[in-house]
Amino acid sequence: MNSAIEAVIGRIAPADQEAIRRAEQRLDILTKPPGSLGRLETLAVRLAGISKTEQPAYGKRTVVVMAADHGVCSEGVSAFPQEVTVQMAYNILGGGAGVNVLARQARAEVKLVDVGVGTDLSHPELIDRKVRYGSGNMAQGPAMNREEAERAILAGISVAEEAVKSGTEIFITGEMGIGNTTASAAVLCALEGIPAETAVGRGTGINDERLHHKIDVVERALRLNVPDVGDAIDVLSKVGGLEIAGLAGLILGAAAAGVPVVLDGFISGAAALAAKKLAPESIHYMIASHVSGEQGHKLMLERLGLEALLDLGLRLGEGTGGVLCLHLIEAVSRIMREMATFESAGVSGAESR
Amino acid sequence: MNSAIEAVIGRIAPADQEAIRRAEQRLDILTKPPGSLGRLETLAVRLAGISKTEQPAYGKRTVVVMAADHGVCSEGVSAFPQEVTVQMAYNILGGGAGVNVLARQARAEVKLVDVGVGTDLSHPELIDRKVRYGSGNMAQGPAMNREEAERAILAGISVAEEAVKSGTEIFITGEMGIGNTTASAAVLCALEGIPAETAVGRGTGINDERLHHKIDVVERALRLNVPDVGDAIDVLSKVGGLEIAGLAGLILGAAAAGVPVVLDGFISGAAALAAKKLAPESIHYMIASHVSGEQGHKLMLERLGLEALLDLGLRLGEGTGGVLCLHLIEAVSRIMREMATFESAGVSGAESR
Repeated sequence: MNSAIEAVIGRIAPADQEAIRRAEQRLDILTKPPGSLGRLETLAVRLAGISKTEQPAYGKRTVVVMAADHGVCSEGVSAFPQEVTVQMAYNILGGGAGVNVLARQARAEVKLVDVGVGTDLSHPELIDRKVRYGSGNMAQGPAMNREEAERAILAGISVAEEAVKSGTEIFITGEMGIGNTTASAAVLCALEGIPAETAVGRGTGINDERLHHKIDVVERALRLNVPDVGDAIDVLSKVGGLEIAGLAGLILGAAAAGVPVVLDGFISGAAALAAKKLAPESIHYMIASHVSGEQGHKLMLERLGLEALLDLGLRLGEGTGGVLCLHLIEAVSRIMREMATFESAGVSGAESR
Repeated sequence: MNSAIEAVIGRIAPADQEAIRRAEQRLDILTKPPGSLGRLETLAVRLAGISKTEQPAYGKRTVVVMAADHGVCSEGVSAFPQEVTVQMAYNILGGGAGVNVLARQARAEVKLVDVGVGTDLSHPELIDRKVRYGSGNMAQGPAMNREEAERAILAGISVAEEAVKSGTEIFITGEMGIGNTTASAAVLCALEGIPAETAVGRGTGINDERLHHKIDVVERALRLNVPDVGDAIDVLSKVGGLEIAGLAGLILGAAAAGVPVVLDGFISGAAALAAKKLAPESIHYMIASHVSGEQGHKLMLERLGLEALLDLGLRLGEGTGGVLCLHLIEAVSRIMREMATFESAGVSGAESR
């Protein structure tokens, strides 16, 4: 493996067991029946393990939207034309997309990273890490070569490292790329040995006929490229996408820096599967924000071993579900810092069960 | 029925179909695949119907926590001693309870209403609408008489009316009352013809033995008092609770004022069932925030015909789940007001499905 990627993986530490223990203890002295905050309590414990404190606070929140194009679009797998990648990239840079609206609400900044859009973009806020002009058509050959996949991963790592240097305390993964549910489904199939008809969903909303075609395209890409199930970089290069590799790098970079990374939906999940394969310990730093409306995402989360907090049938991507989840993370943070204890409030505990 | 309650019910208008139509149209021109915001889109449409605009905004948010004691506690149905009602009422008044923490995050004010706590409370922020010092033990007789139930409903109505006069634009229901999952289960059984073993759950966390006892207590209360399934006030008075009746009034008052009311968990759900029975149109003004960890709540929501937005295993009450849901409501409000359209952003629509 690329030695720079290897070095980052080597810096990923296990979760802090002592902070986890302190979080569990604190949850039991707060003025509420034991366990009554449900999955927020599980989240509180996980965040403690990541942030090495039972009272974490996440000031600067950064949504990293990785954008790229997909050669597989020429197979007709999406309801939207490929030019929408560029148009939506500008919409995000201009602050008008769903992720911008929700990020303003959640006090998060949105960074758009061009890791492989098919044409040149120009905008003062753009982070340009273009590895190549779109991926190749995986139904006819590899999406990219191994070195390009590694460069995309390193791009994600460097975006994470620079954001952390600038004060980012929590990341949210986002993406934009027409055709990327096709690539993500192929990654899920390759890494987890799942049949295409289980992994492939309707993306932005295709009909039955096109869905069957999309399944067929993924099957062909897998047969043609024969990705190595034990080698995530091989999988990403052959049937992945530049933004999927970039997000895998972002996750690794966040984990190495000890910063939590909130996963959005299906494309982020494919990146997370790759990151987990590259660095199993990185899973401790991932928070699954929501289970999306995209078929295959639920199974993906099961394979990651993560339980999503929200289930709203979202399938917009961009990081929208991840940003919504920030409110629950902020809630946990405040509960651990502000809620009264039985002792401080003079409240009696359970007398019997 | 009491003529004042009847007058309020008479003022509840149906949802605004024209605003609903405009909301549906707007959702389809925003820069996202059609339907890709999932249940947030359903919420956007419902809020439009309530607030008579497709771009609603909810500035002043008020959590109304109705507190009361329950005579049925003497049957040993709860894990916590009855004095906790008073202690937690002061914790809420002091700002240290879970609902306070989450309300500060969501920029909501918390109002504690004493509608039937067993002892006198004293605090400058308290809203005193005490109808009686706790309900009677429903396992030995009615929880209260009909006139008391009506007074509790009217108390809730007046709290709603005064808050709306002071600028409240959205309500969240909350409650505090040791023993109130027992009363709520009994209300669910009586109004919906559900067996006690289906409706009764573990409340603040009782063991199997106490759960069987709690089921037995509810069965005895129903047999003894024979509440009239067609008469919600009869049900509330015989096997309900003062805060349940108060919250039913709050819901009716909110609906009459055209203001949305976000339901918290199981106790709020019992109040909602009663409100719906009294005024079927009131259902249009209710938003189900979450499905709680309390057994019976899911069924309760089904009977209400409402789909909850969150499913976090919460069973704390106080209004905590309702307040968490405010972030999703705010998200919808911002999406409808701030998100770019295909035309304004110059983004191409779907070319084919």
